[in-house]
Amino acid sequence: MSDPFVVVGGDAAGLSAASKCKRENPDREVIVYEKSEWISYAHCGMPYYIKGEVDSIGDLLSLSPSDVRERGVTLYRTHEVVSVDPDSHTVQVVGDGKQFEQSYGELLIATGARAFTAPIEGTDLDNVFTLHHMHSAAALRAFLTPPDDADDSIFDTGYVDLDKQEYFEREPPETVAIVGGGYVGIEMAEAFRAWGLETHLFQRSGQPVPPFGDAVAERATEALQEAGVNLHLNTAVERLDGEESVERVVTDDGTVEVDCVLVGIGIRPNTELIEGTPVTFGESGAISIDEHGRTAAEDIYAAGDCAEKDHTVTGDPEWVPLGLTANRAGRAIGQTVAADPEPVGEIAGTAVLKAFELECGRTGIIDHERAREAGFDPVSETITAGSRSGYYPGNAETTVTLTADRESGRLLGGTIAGEDRAAVRINTLATALHEGTTVGEFEKLDLAYAPPFSPVWDPMLVAAKVLNGSIEAE
Amino acid sequence: MSDPFVVVGGDAAGLSAASKCKRENPDREVIVYEKSEWISYAHCGMPYYIKGEVDSIGDLLSLSPSDVRERGVTLYRTHEVVSVDPDSHTVQVVGDGKQFEQSYGELLIATGARAFTAPIEGTDLDNVFTLHHMHSAAALRAFLTPPDDADDSIFDTGYVDLDKQEYFEREPPETVAIVGGGYVGIEMAEAFRAWGLETHLFQRSGQPVPPFGDAVAERATEALQEAGVNLHLNTAVERLDGEESVERVVTDDGTVEVDCVLVGIGIRPNTELIEGTPVTFGESGAISIDEHGRTAAEDIYAAGDCAEKDHTVTGDPEWVPLGLTANRAGRAIGQTVAADPEPVGEIAGTAVLKAFELECGRTGIIDHERAREAGFDPVSETITAGSRSGYYPGNAETTVTLTADRESGRLLGGTIAGEDRAAVRINTLATALHEGTTVGEFEKLDLAYAPPFSPVWDPMLVAAKVLNGSIEAE
Repeated sequence: MSDPFVVVGGDAAGLSAASKCKRENPDREVIVYEKSEWISYAHCGMPYYIKGEVDSIGDLLSLSPSDVRERGVTLYRTHEVVSVDPDSHTVQVVGDGKQFEQSYGELLIATGARAFTAPIEGTDLDNVFTLHHMHSAAALRAFLTPPDDADDSIFDTGYVDLDKQEYFEREPPETVAIVGGGYVGIEMAEAFRAWGLETHLFQRSGQPVPPFGDAVAERATEALQEAGVNLHLNTAVERLDGEESVERVVTDDGTVEVDCVLVGIGIRPNTELIEGTPVTFGESGAISIDEHGRTAAEDIYAAGDCAEKDHTVTGDPEWVPLGLTANRAGRAIGQTVAADPEPVGEIAGTAVLKAFELECGRTGIIDHERAREAGFDPVSETITAGSRSGYYPGNAETTVTLTADRESGRLLGGTIAGEDRAAVRINTLATALHEGTTVGEFEKLDLAYAPPFSPVWDPMLVAAKVLNGSIEAE
Repeated sequence: MSDPFVVVGGDAAGLSAASKCKRENPDREVIVYEKSEWISYAHCGMPYYIKGEVDSIGDLLSLSPSDVRERGVTLYRTHEVVSVDPDSHTVQVVGDGKQFEQSYGELLIATGARAFTAPIEGTDLDNVFTLHHMHSAAALRAFLTPPDDADDSIFDTGYVDLDKQEYFEREPPETVAIVGGGYVGIEMAEAFRAWGLETHLFQRSGQPVPPFGDAVAERATEALQEAGVNLHLNTAVERLDGEESVERVVTDDGTVEVDCVLVGIGIRPNTELIEGTPVTFGESGAISIDEHGRTAAEDIYAAGDCAEKDHTVTGDPEWVPLGLTANRAGRAIGQTVAADPEPVGEIAGTAVLKAFELECGRTGIIDHERAREAGFDPVSETITAGSRSGYYPGNAETTVTLTADRESGRLLGGTIAGEDRAAVRINTLATALHEGTTVGEFEKLDLAYAPPFSPVWDPMLVAAKVLNGSIEAE
């Protein structure tokens, strides 16, 4: 009998792979090692739990340990895989106070990513948070809840360090600084404003959410300002200052007094475990894989936020750590290991973001420099059109940018922003990217029209018409 | 100098063609004859005007006569083209109390469609309405408005027959019957319920909105019943009865007393004008055209609700009278007449419908019999999945049906229904249909995920996964 399929990491990619492998081949032994006590939780839901829109932290769990075990998967939590020996097909595991060796037939590295805080000094002060663990989410929610309103429900789930219980007993903060204007920064601004905090958001560059491009940045800036967020653009945070707790944020443009700081300046793939093995890495620093998720080391796969994936438009490997592609890649690898090879699929970099009431979406390649690197000659147009018939109540201005290759007309990517059903409209474009559709073909799509949902010409079609016209006019 | 481009019909297709032709070739004379006094009005907005959600009937106009004239188009309203002589390239026009001949270089038939009421007896009684003209919309709104709340704003627009003014003076109806459970019937049920009327909806077949298939029909039935509509399915209306005004609806299942009836059992293309000419008709009864909108008669084009169009999936001509494709075909013909030939584009039969709070969408071929006629071996799956992450407030059950060809896996069509952003999600599938995407490829799309807008696996992807699994398992 072959050695087990061993999975390192019990979140989206790891558990998808384990479950799928077991379902396709029930006789195969499948073991998952997770170094924390948590498995299968929704990172993306944390801001809404902290905001109070999601009641209990337990709601963020999609699979419980017993769910996983019912699937026939052997699960070890608080067990860390500390080294990999590809030659002997073994890993070293530390857990329950001891270290032991585990042999594998196939190994999946699904170690995810983690928030980083460098090069900002002072992030070890009290009341400085990142948002990449259930611990920090629970602590922040406890901290924001006035002591009189607090109950023990958070602790019932067993998901909070007992030493964080102190947050319940403190007076809630009044002023918060968010360092970084990406996904986490914007979503957390909504959470902090919902608790009535004076909220400062510091962004090093000149616009929030850079992956969404200029037009969305402009709309998001408006949305943040309308919601009362103090937006400090082109402002670099140099250090956080204070005695025990953070007291002020020192920037290249002055100092702001705060009670609390959230740092959301990015994440990095967790790859330390397999450094020094034959596994190779891409330019992004994430693990290189082939179309079936195989790394350069025999029988070692990688998936999820620690790995690259081929881009739909460029065909080149890119690192885009998002939930759907992690789940899909894990599932495909489970299938490959259990039975027939299944491709892990591509990424188009499709993402959506709620910035207060503004819905933002992006997909594909929207940065012209990146497009040129991939051999395209990019041309973009931005339009603003209604989300419904002009006379229908709730019609909202929707801003669409489309980017295509000038020579072939092929669509490369685009963005959307608006208050009315804008986000899910990005899927129309994501679908077209997968098919290599040209902007001329896209303009001819038979999309939906009814006054409550869309004008005769959907904003996507208006953008295509303008972009196609501008390409043809050249 | 060539004879003018003559357009019969001043609505979506006709005015799009006229405007585009003039823009591309400003020297060309373009003449539009419209037999009514109205041009360019939003049929689809009428139910929302009657409901009271849209204030003034004037809001439904997208172009005024002076807008059209500013574009350099010669517009005659209340001028009816009564005959066409393809040999001499002339039409006979009746207007301003006289008849005259108009010669054309090219002629566009854009005569639209009209509501029919046959074979129901008694539709000529007072207080029986159809919904295919601004007259009837204005009269219905006036009738529903209590005399004390009425003002003259409707008459200011000049869009109401003065003999309909009497509706203002009557007591509003208390009970209404809607004959027909299609688009018009469902949208009007919402309008009547908003005015507090006891509303009976009679549908000959066993489900409402047949073009949306079984799964949507089930959801729509629930939505109608929850909204207090008395739904009479499998009930054929035999006649309307009364002295001067309608008093009762007589069906094969009994009689219901009513104050008012709306008949919405379908529309038919207006083709009388060109019967007896070399112009030919499809099986649907609408005008046959080629890819550039040309009929079988030289220099005669047809577009909009009176013409067929090739279907994206089958390639066969179909009659799907909807707004976007009418506008697009008109625009293409304007381009073809003015300069370079431009295809009128295909239809996928994409449509969306609001049934109270339920959003419904459909695209492509969903009827198995129709699919088999077109040479496919159809297989369908229906799933219900969340519209957002399960823990996020507002998550709503979304029902998706996908249909594919068993042999090739090619997607043929599908439907969606749900309360949360369901309608615009149909565009994802409409885009895939245009590209001939297989369900296996569709399952691999990188679609958007964020808790407020979508679960990790969008309902469309869940449906694709299930359908693909069921095809592979065979």
